[in-house]
Amino acid sequence: MAKPRAVLFDVFGTLVDWRGSLIAALTAFGEKTGRNADWTGLADAWRGAYQPSMQRVRSGALAWTGLDALHRASLDDLLPRFGLAALGDAERDWMVALWHRLRPWPDSAAGLARLRERAIIGTLSNGPVALLVDLAKTGGMTFDVIFGADIFRHYKPDPETYLGACALLALPPGAVMLAAAHNSDLAAARGCGLQTGFIPRPDEHGPSQKRDVQAEADWDVIADSVGALADKIG
Amino acid sequence: MAKPRAVLFDVFGTLVDWRGSLIAALTAFGEKTGRNADWTGLADAWRGAYQPSMQRVRSGALAWTGLDALHRASLDDLLPRFGLAALGDAERDWMVALWHRLRPWPDSAAGLARLRERAIIGTLSNGPVALLVDLAKTGGMTFDVIFGADIFRHYKPDPETYLGACALLALPPGAVMLAAAHNSDLAAARGCGLQTGFIPRPDEHGPSQKRDVQAEADWDVIADSVGALADKIG
Repeated sequence: MAKPRAVLFDVFGTLVDWRGSLIAALTAFGEKTGRNADWTGLADAWRGAYQPSMQRVRSGALAWTGLDALHRASLDDLLPRFGLAALGDAERDWMVALWHRLRPWPDSAAGLARLRERAIIGTLSNGPVALLVDLAKTGGMTFDVIFGADIFRHYKPDPETYLGACALLALPPGAVMLAAAHNSDLAAARGCGLQTGFIPRPDEHGPSQKRDVQAEADWDVIADSVGALADKIG
Repeated sequence: MAKPRAVLFDVFGTLVDWRGSLIAALTAFGEKTGRNADWTGLADAWRGAYQPSMQRVRSGALAWTGLDALHRASLDDLLPRFGLAALGDAERDWMVALWHRLRPWPDSAAGLARLRERAIIGTLSNGPVALLVDLAKTGGMTFDVIFGADIFRHYKPDPETYLGACALLALPPGAVMLAAAHNSDLAAARGCGLQTGFIPRPDEHGPSQKRDVQAEADWDVIADSVGALADKIG
């Protein structure tokens, strides 16, 4: 494997702890506003709606719709089930905006800084550019380039995302690595000819996580942190 | 004027000294290879072909073509006039790649770092993303986001560029400033509703520069360096 010229990162779960961040923020919201609800359940159900909502776009059933709008629609669907139907627009907008300020995993920012000395680093996320810029700035993560789904108007694992990013970098897919905590994302990237780096995040989905706890294929690099990935790339 | 949430920079001439960089590199090439030519004249003629080459794309006469390919075509046209018709492909490719490693003006990198603490900063250039990433990395300039013409498949001053960048930032045009050394670029940005910041670069075109030596309209901010722009934005 030749050293990749660019390493593109999946973001939700790979670089940021969406679940812990959402649970903490929603729980604090409940305490502040005196609302009792299963905030952990809401966070998990909200994320549970993520792939199905994007699948409607991938399949063509829904015209291109960015992730903020998908998040809002799935939140609106879920709130009654959690006894929160009375929440107003401003509170719902605030909840959707939580996805713009998720906490990085403890190793993310420093690991990215190290890797950035050795390669071009960027995002390749199903989040939109604006969300990714917000995450990077609030989380102290510095990238050379931001690729979000709204640039390609496709969601991963559609090949337009992986190949579109390579085209914008003017690099052949074999010179680009996708780094992700999700085997399915890496499989799709490999199918497009990209190199693959697996960073397991066994707590992404909480203590009962079953999937993606380990590599399910011979990914080019397997590393337990972003910094370890940087070291292995050399 | 409300403080802009994002400041997007023109790059060639505004942040990097394309002319001084090209002349220095071409002159060194001539000395190393024993070739005598009017390197300054070649640099100026090459840049002279820049707007006409993009105009063929803007007008629709030429299908979308990125700047590297336009640079190569105009170089191929010009070399015979400068007695350099014998240059081979590798040397021509090397010359085109010079545009990927132009030197920043002395104030650019530090000024951008200061402004980045106060706003989202990015590029909005007619260069492609790959070129801009190369310029940023070789020049030590850190941006929050890179917008190049190949994302929009339009060249400035087409409104698709200014408005496309605002859409990807999820910001209204009035919350975004274009910073540029060129009055015409700022006029187009203002026409799209963006704020405008003028940074004169009276030496961009060399000692005989006539245009863009001063502001030709009441731009929202006028500053003689990137750092001064950061201070005026506050």
